[in-house]
Amino acid sequence: MSSIFTKIINNEIPAYKIAEDENFLAFLDVSPIAEGHTLVIPKKEIDLIFDLETEDFKNLWSFAQMVAKKIQKAIPCKRVGVAVIGLEVPHAHIHLVPMHNIGDLDFGKERLQLSKEEYKKIQETISNAL
Amino acid sequence: MSSIFTKIINNEIPAYKIAEDENFLAFLDVSPIAEGHTLVIPKKEIDLIFDLETEDFKNLWSFAQMVAKKIQKAIPCKRVGVAVIGLEVPHAHIHLVPMHNIGDLDFGKERLQLSKEEYKKIQETISNAL
Repeated sequence: MSSIFTKIINNEIPAYKIAEDENFLAFLDVSPIAEGHTLVIPKKEIDLIFDLETEDFKNLWSFAQMVAKKIQKAIPCKRVGVAVIGLEVPHAHIHLVPMHNIGDLDFGKERLQLSKEEYKKIQETISNAL
Repeated sequence: MSSIFTKIINNEIPAYKIAEDENFLAFLDVSPIAEGHTLVIPKKEIDLIFDLETEDFKNLWSFAQMVAKKIQKAIPCKRVGVAVIGLEVPHAHIHLVPMHNIGDLDFGKERLQLSKEEYKKIQETISNAL
């Protein structure tokens, strides 16, 4: 069965996409711990990120770097934090999270409730950041 | 002034080193949130990880992948989690943390107190993992 992320890749489930190329996709997390919280995934369905072939792995991070720079420009924050946890969805994904304090990368904290309009605005702001 | 990590690189401060090459270094976090919690750093002193040149950035992650595979083999865990926070030491560093549950990547939780002998044993087990 396809992972929920593969369904997003195939446009079977809608998502607020930030950037996409042949091999990778970035989109807003819809259970965000901060405004601008973005997921970066390989289109190849693989559970453990470290099981990616070296070249794919390096290119995934390079893609994530490009996305993180957009977030850094678009969202006021001290820096963009990174987390790979992956115990919920068995499809490797990188969390990019705008941070002000250490506690901002706490996945146990209450998730933000944003409206469609808020998501769209964040999506546009990050996507259009140079 | 040199960062504490640059002092570790220069052997001015001792550390339980796991792997090293010309450009990168991995060593045990001495304030670990799990046994096997390892830091991976570029030898180049840079604050924000995303400010690394693309090639350096990709190679850093490739080095981290090699280290994560060692941890995965050496330490019983479901997977190796990843975090980049970096609000404490202004020298880019990747946390690699053996995980069983989502809560295992919580940096707010109490740190482990390990003896020198325990650190040395973990260091040897991970370093020698193929």
